[in-house]
Amino acid sequence: MDKVKLGIIGIGNMGTGHAKNIIKGEVKEIELCAVADCKEARRNWAEENLSEDITVFESGDQLIEAGICDAVLVATPHYEHPRLVIKALEHGLHVLCEKPSGVYTLQVREMNEVAAKHELVFAMMFNQRTNHVYRKMHELVQGGTLGKIKRVNWIVTDWYRTQSYYDSGEWRATWAGEGGGVLLNQCPHNLDLLQWICGMPSSVRAFCHNGKWHNIEVEDDVTAYLEYPNGATGVFITTTADAPGTNRFEITLEKGKLVCEEDKLTLFELNVSEREHCFREMEGFKKPEGHFVELETDGLNPQHIGVMKAFAGKILHGTPLVADGSEGINGLMLSNAMHLSSWLKKTVEIPFDEELFLVELNKLRVNSKFKKTVKETTFNTEGTY
Amino acid sequence: MDKVKLGIIGIGNMGTGHAKNIIKGEVKEIELCAVADCKEARRNWAEENLSEDITVFESGDQLIEAGICDAVLVATPHYEHPRLVIKALEHGLHVLCEKPSGVYTLQVREMNEVAAKHELVFAMMFNQRTNHVYRKMHELVQGGTLGKIKRVNWIVTDWYRTQSYYDSGEWRATWAGEGGGVLLNQCPHNLDLLQWICGMPSSVRAFCHNGKWHNIEVEDDVTAYLEYPNGATGVFITTTADAPGTNRFEITLEKGKLVCEEDKLTLFELNVSEREHCFREMEGFKKPEGHFVELETDGLNPQHIGVMKAFAGKILHGTPLVADGSEGINGLMLSNAMHLSSWLKKTVEIPFDEELFLVELNKLRVNSKFKKTVKETTFNTEGTY
Repeated sequence: MDKVKLGIIGIGNMGTGHAKNIIKGEVKEIELCAVADCKEARRNWAEENLSEDITVFESGDQLIEAGICDAVLVATPHYEHPRLVIKALEHGLHVLCEKPSGVYTLQVREMNEVAAKHELVFAMMFNQRTNHVYRKMHELVQGGTLGKIKRVNWIVTDWYRTQSYYDSGEWRATWAGEGGGVLLNQCPHNLDLLQWICGMPSSVRAFCHNGKWHNIEVEDDVTAYLEYPNGATGVFITTTADAPGTNRFEITLEKGKLVCEEDKLTLFELNVSEREHCFREMEGFKKPEGHFVELETDGLNPQHIGVMKAFAGKILHGTPLVADGSEGINGLMLSNAMHLSSWLKKTVEIPFDEELFLVELNKLRVNSKFKKTVKETTFNTEGTY
Repeated sequence: MDKVKLGIIGIGNMGTGHAKNIIKGEVKEIELCAVADCKEARRNWAEENLSEDITVFESGDQLIEAGICDAVLVATPHYEHPRLVIKALEHGLHVLCEKPSGVYTLQVREMNEVAAKHELVFAMMFNQRTNHVYRKMHELVQGGTLGKIKRVNWIVTDWYRTQSYYDSGEWRATWAGEGGGVLLNQCPHNLDLLQWICGMPSSVRAFCHNGKWHNIEVEDDVTAYLEYPNGATGVFITTTADAPGTNRFEITLEKGKLVCEEDKLTLFELNVSEREHCFREMEGFKKPEGHFVELETDGLNPQHIGVMKAFAGKILHGTPLVADGSEGINGLMLSNAMHLSSWLKKTVEIPFDEELFLVELNKLRVNSKFKKTVKETTFNTEGTY
């Protein structure tokens, strides 16, 4: 095999973008051989715009069963991700899954268990991990030279969306159609980066506000307080209604502080650990000395194309992925824990009661205005965990 | 009267600084005529360093009773503020009180009631209100042209203190001696500015960590989540252990965003309110347009001297104060609400149960390592509310 034959399941906003990148030759290691979508208008678009070599299917199931691909990219609405990933793996296909990995961790846990049983490549589309700035933060924090984390503040309120965005699809921003709001749709990247760079918190107390700024039933405003196993604390603040928003990710460690604001990263490094200084220094007000460090990065930020190239590279040559599929559950655990904390109005320990999460989510799904899909599609996925 | 004869009660760090400013002629409208301190070493310092015209007393009570001053500046440890303010007012003296106004709102409420009954000037030493940057924020937010507040994030983690600071006085950072940690000692300015600029929240959920970074019994690390009557939310994050710390105060409003970082203020103003744009704009991802505004301020920042001049000006000529004494309770309500929320591990509505706060505080005072003062001084103040 010198090229991976890929099928894309779901050609909405994301799937179409991926298809175009491949067709333009941006990912030479991948050949697009099929697409699938349940919507006729999208299939018509595919038949009019894509080469005749590319087969168009009415469903992901048909695409998988046809046996003409080596791999699939799953880019459907979130609830369907785990079911389709599992089916593809069970048909011997490699899988690249769009974020989020799913809507609730129980279904994603089952997906990971299936993936672990197969010698197939399973990857997540965490394209933000390809950003050189976040890679540098991961390297610096996980490398350990800056000591332990003391505080993490991420204000990421620049996910602006108008009401017309939410009105553009009736499944959008509904409990039954999407399973959440800004945490499920916009923030999976941030939540993945947060855990990738800083590790998993041990508890969360979140305050999610549903339809606070838009006419929607899910959350569009979240403030979460985090505690980490080593005692570090943090906040994660997000919304789709702030203008101008902020994207400022600050990590204070024992030996310095990293601040990433609007894609610019700064590091102030201390000469000695603050923990040592605190107990040795005899002056009461004297701060530890330090200096700004000129950070060098490779400047690369290949985003979706980088993830697809790495996915193909893993299949063809065994080179590393950007993000293993099994890691998709981590950011979702954070998201689920935030929702659960807000619903129960109390602090939630991680790992949390995943059955309870689903019970609570299902209460919201039953009362969701997106009734049709509750019956036809969404509740079908319940049997998959 | 062409000069105000002032007595300073408590010549520790703050009182000594104020005395020096007056002696240097920085506040021409004030003449220092007396000081008081219960510590012999400080009285010796005063007798050696101050002019013979300045009478040195062993206690604030004696200074007040001597009848040689028009006004007093109360700069003792926090618990004593309300008792001394009340006594001074009842002896016909004008009063300038150092921050915080007291340790618990019940005692401050009684102080305010006494002040309301007297035609005397009562002021708080909120010197940060004289900073042109914060005055501009107050003017812009309270002026209303930027619309309602949507979000307030203040990360003020640059109150660095070493262990030796806390070891410098045995009353320091104890429940019995000081009644709190970073919220009571370092943050009263920030909490006052927060309420002065943004108004009072309606509820608080705070996470205070006691002796997390230092060997102390009170809190040195706080994250508080705030909700405002109009639905706005916010966080207030502080510590005495971050290095380098951050001081970033961000206010998002319907028509723009203010960011004050390291004393530099920026305003991004929207051309139309985000609330209008959200429901009129047909593009889903399109952000409201706007521009940075060059902010003009008077550049003045007279700090303590400004507060003392305004205090004298009010007494002599009826000109405005920087901060009325009765406003001291607001920041303390925030501080008390944060403590109470953390002790009860739940959200606290404002106004909160002030009797309950004192019950909880007294539990901590009884078990405080600063036992001596519990008996001799601090519990004496209980009879004052």
